[in-house]
Amino acid sequence: MMGQSATHRVWRVGADIDTDALAPGAYMKFGIEEIARHCLQRVRPEFAAEVRSGDVLVAGPNFGIGSSREQAAVALVRLGVAAVIAPSFGGLFFRNAFNVGLLLLTCPQAEALAEGDRIAFDPMTGRIARPGVEPAELQCEAVPTFLMDMVRAGGLLNVLKQRQSS
Amino acid sequence: MMGQSATHRVWRVGADIDTDALAPGAYMKFGIEEIARHCLQRVRPEFAAEVRSGDVLVAGPNFGIGSSREQAAVALVRLGVAAVIAPSFGGLFFRNAFNVGLLLLTCPQAEALAEGDRIAFDPMTGRIARPGVEPAELQCEAVPTFLMDMVRAGGLLNVLKQRQSS
Repeated sequence: MMGQSATHRVWRVGADIDTDALAPGAYMKFGIEEIARHCLQRVRPEFAAEVRSGDVLVAGPNFGIGSSREQAAVALVRLGVAAVIAPSFGGLFFRNAFNVGLLLLTCPQAEALAEGDRIAFDPMTGRIARPGVEPAELQCEAVPTFLMDMVRAGGLLNVLKQRQSS
Repeated sequence: MMGQSATHRVWRVGADIDTDALAPGAYMKFGIEEIARHCLQRVRPEFAAEVRSGDVLVAGPNFGIGSSREQAAVALVRLGVAAVIAPSFGGLFFRNAFNVGLLLLTCPQAEALAEGDRIAFDPMTGRIARPGVEPAELQCEAVPTFLMDMVRAGGLLNVLKQRQSS
């Protein structure tokens, strides 16, 4: 699903995107579909309507700071975002994201990626390939196997269910 | 143990302290006691010998980046570090830290704290108090209850054990 062969379209946002930008407080009571429909509305009003399954979100430092609301990560999963790539993440968001099956790539050079770039990535080695653009390869932190298991299973609960039934 | 009344002595380190600085690769095979003895040796050679139980470590952005080795967090627990306070943390380190009972406080203004400061803090509200120094109060992200439960229990495994036996 996310090998070097697939290509993913890049959406760019800035630094310090907080959980309220991802899951706006005003929509929290209406459920996850409605929250997802307003995801990133404050910074990219067209995002929720135009993002396609398999696209990736590239951000500046401190992506997902703020509250511990899990819906911030779930909204991105619902919209089909294949990964978020940023130099750093809010710690609570990082915990929640993998728990709900959202892949995060920690990449010091994330901001070298531009809106509309097409990239391939391999989470297990941390390599991002961007054919035809310099630098053609970026290095992220490798994602450990136990976290990739969560991403592949669609979240921690599914990993636990699979283990119980095996 | 960590209310506003207790005071904690500050140790300062810089930005981008990685897991190899916390748990040096050269000592990984000798077990956690030996690893802890060399914790932060590269940046603060006196740290492991002089840190006292209840002291806090204050760092710049990206504390704990690098590998997913859990020993990086366990070494700080073994040395009695009451909390690490930084503007941001490596995501894997953040996961591991709470899982092994190490409290992390995400504080945009962390670097206003100085070596040797005496502080009190309340993780549930995120407030840091520093009597007699300006700014006298800093605001961190509040730590959610489920993570404080892990800190109080000494890690995730102890939380699970307590639940099983209750």
